[in-house]
Amino acid sequence: MARYVLKFGGTSVANVTRLQQVAHIIKRQADAGHELVVVVSAMAGITNELVEYAHSLCPDKLSPEHDVVLSSGEQVTSGLLALALSQLGLQSRSYLAWQVPIQTDNTPSQARITNISTTHLEECLKQKRIPVVAGFQGVNAEGRLTTLGRGGSDTTAVALAAALKADRCDIYTDVDGVYNADPRSVANARKLSHITYAEMFEMAAQGAKVLQARSVELAMKHNVKLRVLSSFVETEGTDIVKERENVESTLVSGIAHSQNDVRITIKNIPNEATSMATIFSYLVENSIPIDMIVQSGVEQESVDLTFTLLHSNLERAQHALKEVHKTVAYSQLDIDTDIVKISVIGVGIRSDLNSLHLLFKTLAAHNISVHLMTTSEIKLSVIIDKNHMDMALNALHQAYQLERVTPQ
Amino acid sequence: MARYVLKFGGTSVANVTRLQQVAHIIKRQADAGHELVVVVSAMAGITNELVEYAHSLCPDKLSPEHDVVLSSGEQVTSGLLALALSQLGLQSRSYLAWQVPIQTDNTPSQARITNISTTHLEECLKQKRIPVVAGFQGVNAEGRLTTLGRGGSDTTAVALAAALKADRCDIYTDVDGVYNADPRSVANARKLSHITYAEMFEMAAQGAKVLQARSVELAMKHNVKLRVLSSFVETEGTDIVKERENVESTLVSGIAHSQNDVRITIKNIPNEATSMATIFSYLVENSIPIDMIVQSGVEQESVDLTFTLLHSNLERAQHALKEVHKTVAYSQLDIDTDIVKISVIGVGIRSDLNSLHLLFKTLAAHNISVHLMTTSEIKLSVIIDKNHMDMALNALHQAYQLERVTPQ
Repeated sequence: MARYVLKFGGTSVANVTRLQQVAHIIKRQADAGHELVVVVSAMAGITNELVEYAHSLCPDKLSPEHDVVLSSGEQVTSGLLALALSQLGLQSRSYLAWQVPIQTDNTPSQARITNISTTHLEECLKQKRIPVVAGFQGVNAEGRLTTLGRGGSDTTAVALAAALKADRCDIYTDVDGVYNADPRSVANARKLSHITYAEMFEMAAQGAKVLQARSVELAMKHNVKLRVLSSFVETEGTDIVKERENVESTLVSGIAHSQNDVRITIKNIPNEATSMATIFSYLVENSIPIDMIVQSGVEQESVDLTFTLLHSNLERAQHALKEVHKTVAYSQLDIDTDIVKISVIGVGIRSDLNSLHLLFKTLAAHNISVHLMTTSEIKLSVIIDKNHMDMALNALHQAYQLERVTPQ
Repeated sequence: MARYVLKFGGTSVANVTRLQQVAHIIKRQADAGHELVVVVSAMAGITNELVEYAHSLCPDKLSPEHDVVLSSGEQVTSGLLALALSQLGLQSRSYLAWQVPIQTDNTPSQARITNISTTHLEECLKQKRIPVVAGFQGVNAEGRLTTLGRGGSDTTAVALAAALKADRCDIYTDVDGVYNADPRSVANARKLSHITYAEMFEMAAQGAKVLQARSVELAMKHNVKLRVLSSFVETEGTDIVKERENVESTLVSGIAHSQNDVRITIKNIPNEATSMATIFSYLVENSIPIDMIVQSGVEQESVDLTFTLLHSNLERAQHALKEVHKTVAYSQLDIDTDIVKISVIGVGIRSDLNSLHLLFKTLAAHNISVHLMTTSEIKLSVIIDKNHMDMALNALHQAYQLERVTPQ
């Protein structure tokens, strides 16, 4: 008998029929004698609808009331799935975050789990009942509801797997595993049988939607075995593991892309010691994370600053930068929303000059200009124009010979 | 400065624009210096949608998971209204039932409030913040969510008004007050400026949708001043009071009707001591409340039993009565769904033979047959065919001279 945490995402629970299919998947695992804890997301589309309501009433996302509104979607799914399980003769009950409790810090919309009490869930398992936990939500020290950010149900599942010492955390989704590029853009994209935590983290952080990056980070930290698989078709999924089993495998494991970024350029900033500090303090105070940064003209009287941030933070960033202008007299603010970030992922890629060279050579051969670039131990990321996206993805997939990767 | 509980129903908070209008109503009261506690229902239509989801997965309404699913609607509204208030510069925060807490017993879908702790709400008021409480929901002794039955937000509002010793509880709805008959059926229906608790209770219990009957009962018990008014138009509403101020006013205060009932007749039940006990024990065990009952042929070998129950309980009732048949060999089960219950309401009506006579005389004059009838201190109710509804309502309205009632 093993203990598994099973997580079902939004498309897996999108309607009553899907919920019944999910109940059958759970029943098969229960009939096999496994101890199960289930985590659910909101039904597909619900969270977007709730975000829209809340946003049209109050664009300031940092109110804790946004979390109250948003967390209702997972409550509905947990109750409905418990009902569907009861119809199959399985004993179960729903758990909301405050009932577990799953405690978090106090950051609205982006809370981090600080503690999970397992007493109630262990008691539930002892009674041979299947707990169905509402994902994405938590409760802070004041007893108010919080949410864990988009895709936060993955984090709930991994955190529960760690706290309950589960043998594995299975993430059921609408794709049948992790691909080395987005199959919708790259025809030759291949499903991976294994990928390391580090690579999966970068794939997720750079735009692969299959898992929330933070959940991978958490799995890596607590050494939780992760598996990504489909709730729609029965095929082998992808295991996310500590180290690649096949050391012969190629350096580059995949290509991710994200269309969620916006590029902002602030022109002719007075080159004074306080200028940059002021700009960044306004962004930090308004909780606007920025990603890639480039500063030009450091030796001159004025400098230009270019950076990217999430499209969803653009409105607040514009507001903050208008405030900045009262003390830092820059001349112009350019905003480019027609960009895409493409990342080549592979452990140790930064120290491999060939990979870097291949990236620029391939893009140049297709006349694709690079607006910004960053590197990390494990990825090379570039910002290019959005209309070059599919061309770049396919060219890079071929250049890094990803279609020939032997199944790992 | 007065302390008011303001309750806004489903159509009052149906969309973002409506929520903003409600926020303006609240602001006017706050600007007038009043201390306010707000209670909200789910946005119109949401609860029905959730009921449908839950019902299609599991028709057994008695699972506590139904309550988990259903209570999410009020959570959304409370968060959204708190956001709308913040945009008008009003300090507020949402409260879910478990955060207050509003404690209830353990009856799924029909829980009763057992205790309300006012500490957190008083603290919130002290900080000059407006609490926006999610109606309809509670939390039981095990810390699980419960719901108070359809229209339960009215009960939440009245119970809070009693617990917080509020000066009045204002129920905002989509009608501008309580009418002495349904204006959609009776053209001469008149709005009442006052009505007694007892009369309002019967009006609500007999089908007037403006208030949940239990909330009126609770208001009467705790002497909470109630006012029904419109969130759509600014007019005077109806005050629900202890005693009629105008003792000269007519005996009959209004006519209510309900189309939610079904009439069941069980034919040829063996006239044994245990027969009736068996039938009623099955209904009680399955939590199926029945309303009007008539038994015929008591002196014979077999008897017929006729009673009415809510349409929503019909499916479960049929199931229970099939079980009954295994031990009580009745010959036939007749079900009539095309009925309407019409009730004439007035304090002391039972002891007034003229009222009773007028009822039968009027119906007979229009060739309307009465299938069943019951009386109480305060009402006369009859079951007639649905296709006679409008004719009966208008005829009775005229017979009892309700269009001539002087404003009370």
